[in-house]
Amino acid sequence: MEFIFSENTKDLKPSAIREIFKSLTDPSVISFAAGNPSPQSFPVSYFRRFTDEVLDNNADAALQYGITEGYTPLREDVLARNKRVFGIGEEFDAAIITSGGQQGIDLTAKVLCSRGDTVICEEPTFIGALNAFRAHGLHTAGVPMRGDSIDPDELEKVIKSAKNPRLLYLIPTFQNPTGRTMPFEVRKRCLEIAEKYDLIILEDNPYGELRFEGEDVPTIKSMDKTGRVVYCSSFSKILSSGMRVGYVIAHGDIATKIAVCKQVNDVHTNLLFQMVCHKFLTEFDLDAHIKNIRGLYRKKSALMLKCLDEIDGGRIEYTRPNGGLFIWASLNGCEDHDAFVKKLVSKKLAVVPGSTFSCDLSRPAQGFRLNYSTPSDEQIIKGVAILKETINELH
Amino acid sequence: MEFIFSENTKDLKPSAIREIFKSLTDPSVISFAAGNPSPQSFPVSYFRRFTDEVLDNNADAALQYGITEGYTPLREDVLARNKRVFGIGEEFDAAIITSGGQQGIDLTAKVLCSRGDTVICEEPTFIGALNAFRAHGLHTAGVPMRGDSIDPDELEKVIKSAKNPRLLYLIPTFQNPTGRTMPFEVRKRCLEIAEKYDLIILEDNPYGELRFEGEDVPTIKSMDKTGRVVYCSSFSKILSSGMRVGYVIAHGDIATKIAVCKQVNDVHTNLLFQMVCHKFLTEFDLDAHIKNIRGLYRKKSALMLKCLDEIDGGRIEYTRPNGGLFIWASLNGCEDHDAFVKKLVSKKLAVVPGSTFSCDLSRPAQGFRLNYSTPSDEQIIKGVAILKETINELH
Repeated sequence: MEFIFSENTKDLKPSAIREIFKSLTDPSVISFAAGNPSPQSFPVSYFRRFTDEVLDNNADAALQYGITEGYTPLREDVLARNKRVFGIGEEFDAAIITSGGQQGIDLTAKVLCSRGDTVICEEPTFIGALNAFRAHGLHTAGVPMRGDSIDPDELEKVIKSAKNPRLLYLIPTFQNPTGRTMPFEVRKRCLEIAEKYDLIILEDNPYGELRFEGEDVPTIKSMDKTGRVVYCSSFSKILSSGMRVGYVIAHGDIATKIAVCKQVNDVHTNLLFQMVCHKFLTEFDLDAHIKNIRGLYRKKSALMLKCLDEIDGGRIEYTRPNGGLFIWASLNGCEDHDAFVKKLVSKKLAVVPGSTFSCDLSRPAQGFRLNYSTPSDEQIIKGVAILKETINELH
Repeated sequence: MEFIFSENTKDLKPSAIREIFKSLTDPSVISFAAGNPSPQSFPVSYFRRFTDEVLDNNADAALQYGITEGYTPLREDVLARNKRVFGIGEEFDAAIITSGGQQGIDLTAKVLCSRGDTVICEEPTFIGALNAFRAHGLHTAGVPMRGDSIDPDELEKVIKSAKNPRLLYLIPTFQNPTGRTMPFEVRKRCLEIAEKYDLIILEDNPYGELRFEGEDVPTIKSMDKTGRVVYCSSFSKILSSGMRVGYVIAHGDIATKIAVCKQVNDVHTNLLFQMVCHKFLTEFDLDAHIKNIRGLYRKKSALMLKCLDEIDGGRIEYTRPNGGLFIWASLNGCEDHDAFVKKLVSKKLAVVPGSTFSCDLSRPAQGFRLNYSTPSDEQIIKGVAILKETINELH
């Protein structure tokens, strides 16, 4: 039979990233397409130990229904750690444990935006957020990235011409897909503009702890004295992505509403892994562990940049991230980056086409995303060689 | 600051059940309010063994991002088991692993219904489903339960007077909150009526394996030859509710659309527990384990019914379930069951007020729900004594 789908979801297509991820069963394909943390970053022996301890000492609670807002000790850990590391958290703030950072984004949009409202985004931006917004029947309007960030004046222009702008979605630190970090002054201006136009800022910071160069830039949430910023993050990039444990820190009124929606979405997040995370935050040297991950990604990004630097400089441009997982590349004078990406895939190098990250699906892609956290050093060298060869064939 | 919430969620309140659950910190309160499985039903030592095995042999995959549709071996297990146990599954069907049965309900409504559409429900019915529908801006229209089930003629009447009826939500077996099981003939008629009015049936069957009396009645999904029935279930009542692993079996076209929405909701379900479930379905005698749970609930329900039978018959009526977790009770001549429930709570017996389960929130509650799976035998005896005493005080 033919099915009629809802107005909000009928035009939704599977994310190109996860589709690429699914098709990466051919072991001869080198993938720079993932958004995955390196398996070397998983503290496996501690997962083994902490799951055993929870099941030995607290199984009845871990296997039973829990509270929607999350395991109380973990919520407290999350608030304490984000206060210490990022200066985040006012009296009015509360933490909700979510099933990965993605659920935080999805539910924030669900509680704050109605069908037909507009979410203002960096252009390009994270496909998972874009599709979450679309699945709620929301419009997305992009503010083009220039240099490190967006231009606040352009942001104002986009807000003014948008229909019911409600939310400003930003990944200020090691942005996905560009790897760029928004300077302090721009962050401040974004918050001022959000106040001026009464927007809520959704600050997505999954990579914030993964800085391997330079100095931390304060989060927008740390400047928030009124509750205008909803902050999403997760343990996916520092402990494990497969366990799906993330969190939202938001004004209590928003947190309560998110909890009501989470209740009817998945009741609560896997409780045993919430307890395991609590152990990671209290019985494990997480800071030392993160320092190791930073060291790993510093090396991997440096290797990929070194290989890229060997391509004739006039042909390709790319970002030099100070942290996170991604480099954004574009070819000078290229009018169809997606076609170029198809050529790469045919030569067994998978990268993510730039159109994936675009608010405006009809806009030609401005580049493509390279990931350095997942491939081996050998794969990085071989993959960039394929990229170089394919560029050389262009002219 | 004051926040403006979305049209769909602004009027949503936390579920009374989870609020009661949260407030049950007073150990002197006897709770018949939970929907929880008995902790005695958790196969803890096998959870210990299987999580160890996954972390010893397959940690890199278990802790990494996975495919949205779910762990492929588990999807195959789910299809095979439901074929064997419930005769479910045609060529066109596919299984999606969800974060508990709740996510299956939420996403099914999201992909099939648009704001302003109506979901037809049994009255009373599961609050988690009602609030999921409301959070998508959907209307709910109730068909009153009479005897074992709903009256098909009344169902047609409700459909005819509903605005854009799209979905028929049914819990045919050991219904929540009533414990009733819909007879075979009514199931057949529901499917015929769904065909006549072009509705999709959402068959929710979380308790289907928990029969302790009588013969299985075929699921509606087992009669579905066209893809009109979406089937939701989970491992919450037979293995662990805290792990949040459930599934949807639906026509491939619907399953694909659900996967697209799941992708932007939580990317995928906790992968280690999907692998653990696969082990439970292939390296563990799940049938023998379920037989034990049935024996446990047979005893507990029999004890609660025996205690209820000792209350003066003219004052209270209640269902005699053949499986599942719940008994539905109502007082003859009582005009305000919610007020009675408040009296019980003041005497330290928590039950769930009937208004919680009502499609129409302005309708006076028709009864209240009693759970026998969670309280101890002693608590069952003591709790029903409080109930008896409170009834006797009424007149």
